[in-house]
Amino acid sequence: MIGGGAAGLGAAGGVKAVDPGAEVVVYTQFEDVAYSPCGIPYVHGGEIESFEKLFLAGKQAYVEAGIDVRYEAEVTAVDTAARTVTVAGEGTVGWDGLVLATGFDYADPGVPGGALGGLYYVKNIRRAMEWDKVLDTVKKAVVVEASPLGAEMVTALAHRGVETHLIDPHPYALAAVADPDIMAPVEESWRELGVHLHFNTSLEAFLGEAGGTVRAVRTSAGELPADLVVVATHKTPNNRLAAAAGLKLGSTGGIVVDDHMQTSAPEVWAAGDVTEIPHGLTGVPLQGLTGSHAYAQGKVAGVNAGGGDRAYRAVYVPWGTPAGRWVIGGASFGEATATALGIPYVLGVAEGISRARYYPGVKKVKVKLLAEPDSLRLIGAQLVGGGEGIKERADFLAMAVKFGMTFHDLSTMENVYSPAIGALNEPIVVAATNGLAAARQGK
Amino acid sequence: MIGGGAAGLGAAGGVKAVDPGAEVVVYTQFEDVAYSPCGIPYVHGGEIESFEKLFLAGKQAYVEAGIDVRYEAEVTAVDTAARTVTVAGEGTVGWDGLVLATGFDYADPGVPGGALGGLYYVKNIRRAMEWDKVLDTVKKAVVVEASPLGAEMVTALAHRGVETHLIDPHPYALAAVADPDIMAPVEESWRELGVHLHFNTSLEAFLGEAGGTVRAVRTSAGELPADLVVVATHKTPNNRLAAAAGLKLGSTGGIVVDDHMQTSAPEVWAAGDVTEIPHGLTGVPLQGLTGSHAYAQGKVAGVNAGGGDRAYRAVYVPWGTPAGRWVIGGASFGEATATALGIPYVLGVAEGISRARYYPGVKKVKVKLLAEPDSLRLIGAQLVGGGEGIKERADFLAMAVKFGMTFHDLSTMENVYSPAIGALNEPIVVAATNGLAAARQGK
Repeated sequence: MIGGGAAGLGAAGGVKAVDPGAEVVVYTQFEDVAYSPCGIPYVHGGEIESFEKLFLAGKQAYVEAGIDVRYEAEVTAVDTAARTVTVAGEGTVGWDGLVLATGFDYADPGVPGGALGGLYYVKNIRRAMEWDKVLDTVKKAVVVEASPLGAEMVTALAHRGVETHLIDPHPYALAAVADPDIMAPVEESWRELGVHLHFNTSLEAFLGEAGGTVRAVRTSAGELPADLVVVATHKTPNNRLAAAAGLKLGSTGGIVVDDHMQTSAPEVWAAGDVTEIPHGLTGVPLQGLTGSHAYAQGKVAGVNAGGGDRAYRAVYVPWGTPAGRWVIGGASFGEATATALGIPYVLGVAEGISRARYYPGVKKVKVKLLAEPDSLRLIGAQLVGGGEGIKERADFLAMAVKFGMTFHDLSTMENVYSPAIGALNEPIVVAATNGLAAARQGK
Repeated sequence: MIGGGAAGLGAAGGVKAVDPGAEVVVYTQFEDVAYSPCGIPYVHGGEIESFEKLFLAGKQAYVEAGIDVRYEAEVTAVDTAARTVTVAGEGTVGWDGLVLATGFDYADPGVPGGALGGLYYVKNIRRAMEWDKVLDTVKKAVVVEASPLGAEMVTALAHRGVETHLIDPHPYALAAVADPDIMAPVEESWRELGVHLHFNTSLEAFLGEAGGTVRAVRTSAGELPADLVVVATHKTPNNRLAAAAGLKLGSTGGIVVDDHMQTSAPEVWAAGDVTEIPHGLTGVPLQGLTGSHAYAQGKVAGVNAGGGDRAYRAVYVPWGTPAGRWVIGGASFGEATATALGIPYVLGVAEGISRARYYPGVKKVKVKLLAEPDSLRLIGAQLVGGGEGIKERADFLAMAVKFGMTFHDLSTMENVYSPAIGALNEPIVVAATNGLAAARQGK
């Protein structure tokens, strides 16, 4: 395995599951494996008390599992014909099966000043620990791009009391995945937290003395002073090794894999952010999914690399994250993506609640469903709410898309009714019922 | 409509939806409509601050909707041939369509002493307000039967600081719906709250001076002193009018209805706890479902009574409720019911978590899935957890049963991964994966 993230470790476990005697080596360029990088923004924000909490397992756990993790080991080349990799300081190493799990890089912002200090790319936990100390001294920060990570970091910095500016070239936050009406309450809550939002605004340069630290960013709408800049541009596949080895890459730059996570080369598999996976309905290749996807893909790749036979299917992409005072989520795609792809849809929207209206702790749950106009088959969903049940509804709605459930099916679904945990009318049911009415009116 | 609960009001709304000019009269024997009786235990327990919170709409709202609600009006007879009802004090009233929504009664405990004071049957909100004052003076209470309501009242009384004894003839709580392993943590938490549990224990008599108030109950395991007894026996359909009118009743005593909620008599529909509805997989008639079911059934009955055409399908019964320090739930049926009905099954069980392991507020989520042995199609599920996502998972799993999802489907389902709202491994996925392993081992 090349890569010690969720995909690489999933793959290592997958091999061992089918061939416990296999010699399994994981190369990682980092000092650690088996921690949750997704938790980093929440330690910065103070929700999680320490970075130590993010570690899942000690290094000894892998030794005991018979998985040989080589830390701070850089693989510099892959030869798929000779079936070798070249490891810096170790030389050429042979393999019978190879899993590429080299993950992602942040897209290069492509502006001057990229070598300045004070530019924080959130990724490695040891660097995050160092940055966390820096954050204690930061008064003003700029977050570049309202990506999922950007949204998390904006919330974290605001919670930490840093004057935070978000810049993004789109007219609203998380434009690549969410709809504007879903993001509107999030943006309002960021403003309430004191965040300054600069949409339709492009980064033009990081400003500072050469060899020094960033002091400001120049944007299409003027200069913003900053002690720190979080660069949260979109994820791009870290495909250098794959490209050099001649593996087939797709339109996103991700490695093209079949349903067994096999690449274009024999006995070479790939998993996680370095791959691209087709969307279940549109076939559009998607890249940069979640750690949960990476882990599942890694498992599949590892099982097959170990001599087993397991398939990974197209994705329907349930997603969710806290943002400001809200939790947002969805499945498949929303209106913005449907419109961009020219996919016609009927909408069913409802503003519901998570518990009985009178029960303490009741939260809003807005559900927005998209269906194919004639069949009324669900094709996508977006959610925003106070938190309760957003993740579980997104998971369900992804399966509803996959299994072809219609507005009819969802409008007649049964739901738990118990005042402390669920309302009389499930918001999904109300949204689907409204969708049926909209379809009848030809909206 | 006869009955002013969720079914009767749902039906009134259903008629108006298809025929806004229809003359709609709702007879209720009570002083109020449009409140949530399900909230009563939570006001007693102090979670909800007042009974006033439980009211959904004022009486004026129904006047404005053109629905004529007759309060404290008792319908004493139904004549399906003459198409009339007899209303006490009002005489004979004709109808073109009739919806019976007369609800439930608690099963008669059938023991001496039933006329004593201090026996609390939780139902009407005005009586609940009076009982709530009584509760301030109560030191020891006995709850008769660990039904869903009994479980809620046990928790409520314990929260209120009353010495609470639960008696139930079964070996564990909620035996009609839940499995013993699901209830074990609930029972432990009740004990921690100071509740005394008496299982395998039958009620033999309410004890007290004739014409006075209960002072104790006699049980198969001895006498228990009590200032108050909550009688939470199972729900039976309030079928007196229907039986007298010659409507066909089923094995539960519930009115038999077709998929349009129509009874055996022309132009007579029924909805809610007075009916029985077939289980989607087994066809076993079920009675005493939730307010959410009653409302949906009422809507269907009303639409059809108003000249529309709407069907109601068999049920897959997602359910859930807080109990002690836990929230329990499920869909379709569990092991206990499957065993009782002679239905073979393979189990998939997992103890998962609701958020990232390191995220504050993370709760346990135990998922137990039952599948048909060969197809591995999901046939039932049971859940217990700290609260987060139990209701939403139960809703989803009921749809998964309905749509024939298998352990394969569920083991490969995608899930949201975001530390604050969902764990890397969705507990349903882990349970299904364990179920596949169990099936391979022929367990």
